[in-house]
Amino acid sequence: MELDMEMIDKVQCKGTLEQKYNIIKNRYIMEEVIVPIAKALGLSLDEVIELFVREYDGAALYETHAFAEQARMACLGRKVDIDLGLCWICDFYGLISKREGDLIRKKVVEDVLVNNIPYKEALKRGRELLVKLLKSNKEIE
Amino acid sequence: MELDMEMIDKVQCKGTLEQKYNIIKNRYIMEEVIVPIAKALGLSLDEVIELFVREYDGAALYETHAFAEQARMACLGRKVDIDLGLCWICDFYGLISKREGDLIRKKVVEDVLVNNIPYKEALKRGRELLVKLLKSNKEIE
Repeated sequence: MELDMEMIDKVQCKGTLEQKYNIIKNRYIMEEVIVPIAKALGLSLDEVIELFVREYDGAALYETHAFAEQARMACLGRKVDIDLGLCWICDFYGLISKREGDLIRKKVVEDVLVNNIPYKEALKRGRELLVKLLKSNKEIE
Repeated sequence: MELDMEMIDKVQCKGTLEQKYNIIKNRYIMEEVIVPIAKALGLSLDEVIELFVREYDGAALYETHAFAEQARMACLGRKVDIDLGLCWICDFYGLISKREGDLIRKKVVEDVLVNNIPYKEALKRGRELLVKLLKSNKEIE
């Protein structure tokens, strides 16, 4: 009897694992979650899938896709901070306010991810806005 | 008499401005503060100097140099977040804890800025640490 129970557990467990693999091998989850992480880590897709299957249950795996957009936005925001020097201009030298820095970062990120403007062009627009702001602060004071 | 006072004000003001320019044209401030910001903004060095002279008094200008190290660390930390996918792995998918993510970021930044290890090599070490951590979490559980 105990052996049977053990077998059922094993079969059920295998079933659940298989279900998890099926969920995660959904095209959108693969493209938008697994591939970017595999690239960043230099791991194979299977290795990254293993990490997710281990940490997440089936329902949570479905939801990973919803977080991908937010993660992409956060990553891109960090890139904008670097490329526009916002870490310097805003965070450390206070040449513009934190609120102004947030607005510019957000605008560039939205231009790229929502309005499909190429990053280089969106960055150029963000930079123009930033310079205008820096110079107009000058006139106000 | 009033005209004289006005002249004194003007001369003093000019003196202070000249002092400010002298401070900011210190080699370290130029190299470590003005040049990186000019590059990020696509402005001339003189334009960036103007921004600082306008916003800062002499004493604060002396201190700008001290902030440069911190700003560089913050910028580099953001780059590590992107290149190691920490925005995904740590912030959004919780595959490692926030504390673990902070430690890895800090290690890479210190390797580059304190230990003079080239970024690519420091990133490689950080990635190895991250993968080891991700896989060892697996064994612990």
